[in-house]
Amino acid sequence: MEYVIADSIKDMKPSAIREIFKSLGVPNMISLAAGNPSPLSFPVEKMGNIAKEIFEQNATEALQYGTTEGYMPLRNQVKERLKNKFNIGKPFDEVIITSGGQQAIDLAAKVLCNPGDTIICENPSFIGALNAFRTYNVNLVGIDIEDGGIDPAKLEKAIIDNPNTKLIYLIPTFQNPSGVCMTLAKRKAVLDIAKKYNVVILEDNPYGELRFAGEEIPTIKSLDDDGHVIYCSTFSKILSAGMRVGYCCAHTDLIQKIVICKQVNDVHSNQFFQILVSRFISEYDLDEHIQFVRGLYRRKCELMLKTMEQKFCGDIIYTRPEGGLFLWVTKPGLDSDEFAKLAVKNLVAVVPGSTFLPVQGKKSDSIRLNYSTPSDEQIVTGIERLAKLLNGDK
Amino acid sequence: MEYVIADSIKDMKPSAIREIFKSLGVPNMISLAAGNPSPLSFPVEKMGNIAKEIFEQNATEALQYGTTEGYMPLRNQVKERLKNKFNIGKPFDEVIITSGGQQAIDLAAKVLCNPGDTIICENPSFIGALNAFRTYNVNLVGIDIEDGGIDPAKLEKAIIDNPNTKLIYLIPTFQNPSGVCMTLAKRKAVLDIAKKYNVVILEDNPYGELRFAGEEIPTIKSLDDDGHVIYCSTFSKILSAGMRVGYCCAHTDLIQKIVICKQVNDVHSNQFFQILVSRFISEYDLDEHIQFVRGLYRRKCELMLKTMEQKFCGDIIYTRPEGGLFLWVTKPGLDSDEFAKLAVKNLVAVVPGSTFLPVQGKKSDSIRLNYSTPSDEQIVTGIERLAKLLNGDK
Repeated sequence: MEYVIADSIKDMKPSAIREIFKSLGVPNMISLAAGNPSPLSFPVEKMGNIAKEIFEQNATEALQYGTTEGYMPLRNQVKERLKNKFNIGKPFDEVIITSGGQQAIDLAAKVLCNPGDTIICENPSFIGALNAFRTYNVNLVGIDIEDGGIDPAKLEKAIIDNPNTKLIYLIPTFQNPSGVCMTLAKRKAVLDIAKKYNVVILEDNPYGELRFAGEEIPTIKSLDDDGHVIYCSTFSKILSAGMRVGYCCAHTDLIQKIVICKQVNDVHSNQFFQILVSRFISEYDLDEHIQFVRGLYRRKCELMLKTMEQKFCGDIIYTRPEGGLFLWVTKPGLDSDEFAKLAVKNLVAVVPGSTFLPVQGKKSDSIRLNYSTPSDEQIVTGIERLAKLLNGDK
Repeated sequence: MEYVIADSIKDMKPSAIREIFKSLGVPNMISLAAGNPSPLSFPVEKMGNIAKEIFEQNATEALQYGTTEGYMPLRNQVKERLKNKFNIGKPFDEVIITSGGQQAIDLAAKVLCNPGDTIICENPSFIGALNAFRTYNVNLVGIDIEDGGIDPAKLEKAIIDNPNTKLIYLIPTFQNPSGVCMTLAKRKAVLDIAKKYNVVILEDNPYGELRFAGEEIPTIKSLDDDGHVIYCSTFSKILSAGMRVGYCCAHTDLIQKIVICKQVNDVHSNQFFQILVSRFISEYDLDEHIQFVRGLYRRKCELMLKTMEQKFCGDIIYTRPEGGLFLWVTKPGLDSDEFAKLAVKNLVAVVPGSTFLPVQGKKSDSIRLNYSTPSDEQIVTGIERLAKLLNGDK
């Protein structure tokens, strides 16, 4: 039969990253295109021990339906951790466990946006969030990323130009894809603007715990004194991505609506792994494990940067991230789509910058590189392959 | 701050069932209100063995990001099982693994419905589906459940009256909450009507494998020769509900759109438990386990029916299910909301029939009882408590 697809979905295409991934089966292909944590970052033995304990001690609870809000001990541990480590959580705030950070992003948009409303985001921004927003038929407005984050004056102008703005979506720390960190001054200015115009900020912080250089910067949520910020994060990058355990902290009034939407989305997140994460936090030292992951990524990032310094020449610019998973490489005049195709032909996969643009169909002169997933050898060989393509006048 | 919630969400309330569940902490409360599988139905030892193997043999794969469509070996096993056991799956069909059956229901509506479109469903119907549909701001039209399922003539009239009908949502086998099975003749008639008016049927079959009496009836999907039926089911009632592993089989064109929406929903379902289910199917006899669960529920259902025969008197009518988890009890003149409150005061929790009505705020003279979760003793005592309240003229 001929299907009539909903207006908001009918023009949506599988993400370009997924298409690139299809090329990864090619022998000798090196992928610098992933967004995955390093397989070395999973504490397999400890998680295996806990899994065994759960099957022995509380299998029924772990295999039965749970509550939509999440496994209560884990919610309490997340609240405590957010409070103690990040100064996040006012008396009006509540926490819900979500199926990865992605679900929190999706539900925040679902709860707040009518079709035609505007969401302002960084330009470029995380494709998973942009596509989630697109399914709600919203108007996406991008503010260019600069050193130290978006320009608050441009944000204010965008809100004035789009009075139906319902959400400001930001990844202030190790932004995906650019790797940029927003300065504290800009974080404060952005929050002030959100308050002035009564718009909610969705602060997405999946990489915040992966800082391996520089100074911590307070999250926007930690500055939020009256519920203007929805904060979401995840255990994907510090314990395991495949388990799909994330969380969201926001004003109780918003969490109540998010709970209603999550209930009809997937009822609750995987109960077994909620218990596993909870026990990991009780029985082991999560911060010690995070220190290990940071060290791993510092080394991998330094190796990639060192290889780039040695191999790249000409007018290639790249970020020097202080954390997270990504490097952002720019070459003036580059067509990122054409370059990504050329790179795949030369057995190295990268994500074209165009993927991350709020306005679809535009060109980008940048590519995103990932250093967390490839082996050290793959990092070196991958950069060498890229250098051959990027160097010279092209 | 004052939040402006999206139109489709702002009037949504937590489901009445959730409110009832809050009363379950009261000492000596007996719950006949659940929709949970029996804790005795979880093959804990076998699942524990497999979990151990996964941590030993392919932990990295199980803890890393997976593909949105689902773990390929499991998808293939589901396809094979659907084909061999239920004659489901034409060359145009594809299978996606979902986070429980609930996610498949939610995504089907998201892919097909614009705000204001109509979804036709059985009256009463599954609250989780009704609430999922409500979040898309659709018009819900209920067709009364009768013996042997809805009247196809009434379905046809509803489609004619609502030319913007995009979806017909049906639970043809052991319908929730009524327990009714749709006859084969009605299944055929319903499919013919869907084809005549070019409307998609969403066939929800979470209980189909839990038949403990009577003859198997072919699913509507098995009769579908040109892609009019989206079929969804789950491992929740035959292996574990807490793991959130379900699946959806539909025409490739629809699955592609569902994949796009699922990707921005939760990226993929819990990878570890997808592998665990896959290995369970390879290493153990799933059908043998299902036979065990059927036997368990047959016995529990018979115990509840026997106790009702002994204790209920007067004009109380109830279904005699041949499978599934629920009994549907009707007493002419009963106000189900008032009765459910009275029941909780008398230490027995039931779900008022009003919960399941597509049109909110209406009254029902029925209640839903669950026999899978309570112990044998709780079944007897629970029915005795209900009998005291239901008997007499009230």
